[in-house]
Amino acid sequence: MQIYKAPVSDMRFHLEAFGYDEVAAIERFSAYDVETAGVLLEQSGTFMRETLLPLNRLGDEKGLDWDPETGRVTTPDGFKAAYEATVQNGYVSLPGPEEHGGGGAPATLSALVSEMMTACNKSFSMCPGLTFGLIEAIEAHGSQAQKDFYLPKFVSGEWSGTMCLTEPQCGTDLGLIRTKAEPEGDHYRLSGTKIWITFGEHDMTENIVHFVLARLPDAPPGIKGISVFLVPKLVDGQPNNIKCVGLEHKMGIKASPTCVMEMEGAKGFLVGEPHKGMRSMFVMMNRARLFVGLEGVALGEIAYQTALEFAKDRRQSRALDPAKRDANAAADNILVHPDVRRMLMNVKATTEGMRGLGIYASIQLDKSIAHPNEDERQKADDLISLLTPVIKSYFTERGFENVSEALQVCGGSGYTTDWSIEQYLRDVRIGLIYEGTNHIQALDLVGRKLPLHGGRLMQVFAGEVTAAIRAASGDERLEPFMAELKAASKQLNEVTMELAQSAMADAEVAGAVASSYLNLFAMTAMAFSWLRQATHAVRKGGPMAETKLKTARFFFDVVLPEREFFAAQVRAGKAPMMDFDVEEFEVA
Amino acid sequence: MQIYKAPVSDMRFHLEAFGYDEVAAIERFSAYDVETAGVLLEQSGTFMRETLLPLNRLGDEKGLDWDPETGRVTTPDGFKAAYEATVQNGYVSLPGPEEHGGGGAPATLSALVSEMMTACNKSFSMCPGLTFGLIEAIEAHGSQAQKDFYLPKFVSGEWSGTMCLTEPQCGTDLGLIRTKAEPEGDHYRLSGTKIWITFGEHDMTENIVHFVLARLPDAPPGIKGISVFLVPKLVDGQPNNIKCVGLEHKMGIKASPTCVMEMEGAKGFLVGEPHKGMRSMFVMMNRARLFVGLEGVALGEIAYQTALEFAKDRRQSRALDPAKRDANAAADNILVHPDVRRMLMNVKATTEGMRGLGIYASIQLDKSIAHPNEDERQKADDLISLLTPVIKSYFTERGFENVSEALQVCGGSGYTTDWSIEQYLRDVRIGLIYEGTNHIQALDLVGRKLPLHGGRLMQVFAGEVTAAIRAASGDERLEPFMAELKAASKQLNEVTMELAQSAMADAEVAGAVASSYLNLFAMTAMAFSWLRQATHAVRKGGPMAETKLKTARFFFDVVLPEREFFAAQVRAGKAPMMDFDVEEFEVA
Repeated sequence: MQIYKAPVSDMRFHLEAFGYDEVAAIERFSAYDVETAGVLLEQSGTFMRETLLPLNRLGDEKGLDWDPETGRVTTPDGFKAAYEATVQNGYVSLPGPEEHGGGGAPATLSALVSEMMTACNKSFSMCPGLTFGLIEAIEAHGSQAQKDFYLPKFVSGEWSGTMCLTEPQCGTDLGLIRTKAEPEGDHYRLSGTKIWITFGEHDMTENIVHFVLARLPDAPPGIKGISVFLVPKLVDGQPNNIKCVGLEHKMGIKASPTCVMEMEGAKGFLVGEPHKGMRSMFVMMNRARLFVGLEGVALGEIAYQTALEFAKDRRQSRALDPAKRDANAAADNILVHPDVRRMLMNVKATTEGMRGLGIYASIQLDKSIAHPNEDERQKADDLISLLTPVIKSYFTERGFENVSEALQVCGGSGYTTDWSIEQYLRDVRIGLIYEGTNHIQALDLVGRKLPLHGGRLMQVFAGEVTAAIRAASGDERLEPFMAELKAASKQLNEVTMELAQSAMADAEVAGAVASSYLNLFAMTAMAFSWLRQATHAVRKGGPMAETKLKTARFFFDVVLPEREFFAAQVRAGKAPMMDFDVEEFEVA
Repeated sequence: MQIYKAPVSDMRFHLEAFGYDEVAAIERFSAYDVETAGVLLEQSGTFMRETLLPLNRLGDEKGLDWDPETGRVTTPDGFKAAYEATVQNGYVSLPGPEEHGGGGAPATLSALVSEMMTACNKSFSMCPGLTFGLIEAIEAHGSQAQKDFYLPKFVSGEWSGTMCLTEPQCGTDLGLIRTKAEPEGDHYRLSGTKIWITFGEHDMTENIVHFVLARLPDAPPGIKGISVFLVPKLVDGQPNNIKCVGLEHKMGIKASPTCVMEMEGAKGFLVGEPHKGMRSMFVMMNRARLFVGLEGVALGEIAYQTALEFAKDRRQSRALDPAKRDANAAADNILVHPDVRRMLMNVKATTEGMRGLGIYASIQLDKSIAHPNEDERQKADDLISLLTPVIKSYFTERGFENVSEALQVCGGSGYTTDWSIEQYLRDVRIGLIYEGTNHIQALDLVGRKLPLHGGRLMQVFAGEVTAAIRAASGDERLEPFMAELKAASKQLNEVTMELAQSAMADAEVAGAVASSYLNLFAMTAMAFSWLRQATHAVRKGGPMAETKLKTARFFFDVVLPEREFFAAQVRAGKAPMMDFDVEEFEVA
């Protein structure tokens, strides 16, 4: 049972609530006003459901074929045709630069299309997602010749791209990279092994271009000696010396090839300056991490819809309130049971809260890149920089919890493959790990984003919170929510001040409490999302308004109180885990 | 990579800390003093690791063969031989009644052996576990002839047993059962379909006896018209009309057959009185639910050990404290990183807390059955009745979180099959669903156990908490923990009083907050477990003492603060989910 209805009305609601009109007012995005966006989302949702969803379970069951002889990887039946249809319908080129044949759509729209694609087929969605990362990197750091040569191929979807970062001895710590690049005329020869290469080899595009981190012979040690190269599978139509020598066997995303790639003197082309490769990496991080966060929204959404469908059909036990009992049946629909509702609301309230916050962040991303006013660009850049690690980490964790909660609604049926939620749970779990583990996000927030520019990013965000509270005033239905956001924000600011002091004195404190601090931050950010939504609901009225207010109430009453727990964890400091000898971890 | 070291020292520590000597002092358990128990646990751990663990991943990968023609199910290679070895080594007969050839071991020991078996091979462990349920039911409600005929076969492991409760239209709500039993001479003919039948068909024993809930022709409707029958696969060596007509395809426990069983006039034998079948069911519930809870301990433990092994091997990034950097390597072992420690401690502190509480509860179970003093039996029965739903629900939920946390320690490697944690995560997830979903446990706690005998169960437990605090006095190292338990217990009592009032006025309130209330209860129960452990550590001294105190501190500082969140959720009442129209759940 695989069902999905694109949540387009909710998406449109957020576009309005979080100020998408400011993005549409930017000249380069003027073709995408909110009406056009709505039509595009509607079409996109239909396409994803009709074309990609039917392949989702099949891809999970059949997985991938890898030929050890040739290194070729074959995707499950139908994937290649689906990729072609996705290209033809313009979903691959949508976010690409117009001068290279792309749709030039804002990141906000692209994020929503990506949410729908991920919901319908997470494995499949990873291929176009990665290619866009290369487009961004080449746009920022490639030569004009590289742009002219590669970008049209990527934008059109004819070629796909990969990120070759990790090696067996290094994941989080890229300074340990060993892959070598030897100069040879106008190019380089690369040798080394890369692991965890998503869509490193497949049969959906005619060529695959690898974005490879490696060291030149004169590279300084560590992170300051990393250069970036483009290593195509085919150079001038001829095979290059890069080969898929194995596939990982994974818990989920089984139709997404995770390759071990071996290079033996593979031809590569330097991007940007020697030894400055990490700069090219950072270009694509905000967007990539934001999009990974949205995977938690996507899979939480489809799991919710599946669980709701199950609940609407299932009758079990009697309503606790006699007035709600169905006299014509021996048992009542399980939607009468408070706990079933609690589980569904847990998923609904957080999924919509995250979608709103994600759209708000995407809007900042678009403004940070394209707003005509420099101050606005800077402010938006501060916000997206601050929110990116929060979104990547909190959304993936909550998404995992949400899919598990939806599975629970279905009981034993949820544990079987029949309802597919178990697949969504396996698929969603990777989000906590890749694109920088969630703890790396927390360190980025605490160690980098908080102190940046003397704490300016946090001040800008606090200003947004204050503005949201001010904008809500004048309607008594919003007052309890305003008070809750104010309290959460006050607590966050206090804990932030305390942490800034203790972390300055002892770096280990920052490491010990960063993950809890990130979750505390997420609570305020989510409350901000819900107050903005509730405010918009009140102002706009209409059929969704009442439901939005009730869902907001659930969030404030049942979800937000977790902030006290996270604050207590931050305040516990480092002693509980650091006053522990290594031997004490051993099993007694 | 599958590794496991039986945590025998920790188990022995708990046996001492939680008063196992009282069980060993009971005459029928006198063969199992703490020393003998220790030896048995040591041997058992070795056996499980050597015999069952090597089959665990293989069972997951290969799964089961089912022949649609004959209905026969074949277990993975090696399972049958492993079952025979398990029988020969006495682990199947260990808890069985001595008069029928069993070891007569207390439930406490049996629980620990079961923990080790589950850790090493969860799929496999379900077969002997179920058989013991039948032993209990027949002992309590079977005729002498039934006892004499069936019990020796079950105790020896020659035959296995199943529970046939669920039907397509009913899981939680057994009143909806439709399977019919028609009298025929001294037996009955049963017809109907049962689903989710664990080990309903397999090749490890020569016969399988099904414990089937069904209706007699004159049965009153609903739950008061359920009778129980024994339906053997073979009667006098001849095939009965019961057949496995399909296997479920599941997320995990893939080597444990989950069968659809069809009966067409199958020969069955009534157990106990007509229409009183639910009584036979309840006999086995405390034990069965306690053991399911311990699955969370078992899989959390093996996942922890695996993650620790990974962490000890992996080097990545530099220690935040320069003094901890290894000058001879380019990166430090990840055990220096505070967040890796936080994740490991999260698992360790809760796993040991749960193991202690589980052993405490098992001791109560043994005393409730066998203590010579009636008052002691009653008191123990009150405690096990109250704690059973808490243990089943909280342990399985926390176990799932713990395995996920251990997976996160391993990063991308944890997501692959190489380290097997992903299998443990899939396997552990079923615990939240079967043997009564976790919400059913919460309703049992709030709706049944709290009001029982005018709240006596809760009073007995509060007495135990007070006694634990009193016993801890006199050592300043214990003072912060005493204060924390006192505060948690006070909060629990207050919330319990409030809930008793609001739930009496409105049954939906109980349903809406029961799950959060159960978690709040678990926080106090876990704090009780940790104060008892810390007290024992201080009194006993020795090499484990310091580590226990540090682990206790982690629990009190980092885990226990979540109680505020659960209390707030209980106090939010029913409005957040019940003031919501059914249509409002639909996707916008």
